[in-house]
Amino acid sequence: MSVITVERKILEKNDAVARQNRELFLRHGIFVINLVSSPGAGKTSLLERTLEHLRGSIRVAVIEGDVQTDLDAQRVALYGVPAVQIITRGGCHLEANLVREALQNIALASIQLLIIENVGNLVCPSNYDLGESLKVVVGSTTEGDDKPLKYPAMFRNASVLIINKIDLVPYLQSDPAILRTNALQINPSLRVFETSCTSGVGIEEWCTWLREQVKR
Amino acid sequence: MSVITVERKILEKNDAVARQNRELFLRHGIFVINLVSSPGAGKTSLLERTLEHLRGSIRVAVIEGDVQTDLDAQRVALYGVPAVQIITRGGCHLEANLVREALQNIALASIQLLIIENVGNLVCPSNYDLGESLKVVVGSTTEGDDKPLKYPAMFRNASVLIINKIDLVPYLQSDPAILRTNALQINPSLRVFETSCTSGVGIEEWCTWLREQVKR
Repeated sequence: MSVITVERKILEKNDAVARQNRELFLRHGIFVINLVSSPGAGKTSLLERTLEHLRGSIRVAVIEGDVQTDLDAQRVALYGVPAVQIITRGGCHLEANLVREALQNIALASIQLLIIENVGNLVCPSNYDLGESLKVVVGSTTEGDDKPLKYPAMFRNASVLIINKIDLVPYLQSDPAILRTNALQINPSLRVFETSCTSGVGIEEWCTWLREQVKR
Repeated sequence: MSVITVERKILEKNDAVARQNRELFLRHGIFVINLVSSPGAGKTSLLERTLEHLRGSIRVAVIEGDVQTDLDAQRVALYGVPAVQIITRGGCHLEANLVREALQNIALASIQLLIIENVGNLVCPSNYDLGESLKVVVGSTTEGDDKPLKYPAMFRNASVLIINKIDLVPYLQSDPAILRTNALQINPSLRVFETSCTSGVGIEEWCTWLREQVKR
């Protein structure tokens, strides 16, 4: 019982900092995405395609969250955007105060869109508000079509589902239509995109939607 | 700081129960696997192929750990083995006391091999000993080849790496040889198998190794 109390206190503290982050983003008119998924669903690849696509039209910054290594920030920095790496050293999710610290390395007045790539984990990040405008969950076709049922909190808390690696469907036994149905059963208001970072399918549609959110 | 103390106490309590589980397994001469991976790497499919292969030669039982649903226990039960489902209701990993409770539904004197399928999560389960003989981490080729570097604790604590979905390699940009090299860099003593649950490649080799462990 004491453990639950401690956990609740941690979440309350986190939510308070998240609210401050959110106010800061609102003040600067920045649209903020908290990008979540299993390890290897393709968050960083999607980010690369997105940065490629938005180059010259939207000013973006990226915060990368990883348990270990700054490999992802290195990949993202190649696209000429400000990229800050948070290494959690074993921590299974980002928290609002880590994001607040990372923000000190980003010139907020000069960006319109901030993408926060969370630690690859379909469970823990769902509880931690970072102050984002919305959560985008990336599901890969290769993970099978039952994940929304087995990890419902993440799909319930997200506003957007990106079904990635759609190019691999011909070689799989799982069905993206069933994945979509399962996700909408958990959260009927999910906006769903289908993408492939290899073929480029769906990236334009996703980026068009993103541009509309930023311009709001 | 108080949080770290609480976490340490939780781990110490868990380790004490894990030791009791381990003694119980030793007394009954049961070889126990703690099967870990990202969501959707193919743990349950691998389990299905393994049960198919071992049928009639080794007496197996299965404990399924999931955040939600008993879909996996249903799949496994079709193979005629005792299967107990643990639903963590949001919990991101199995703990030794959950396993201890589940064991009350298994006739330990009548089995030789127990496979515990953990929650799909490449971070949190690495800290929680369940009393197993060893951890087997399943990595999917579709997750990319950098995961051992980004989630080192899991690969450090595992004794076996199964590189699954090897049939999809022709359609991917990632390289299983690099995945293997990265994993061995983190943990040089890892025993590595390459499998496909679709084509059946590698299942025989994996099951032969498993049979040898059980017969020891």
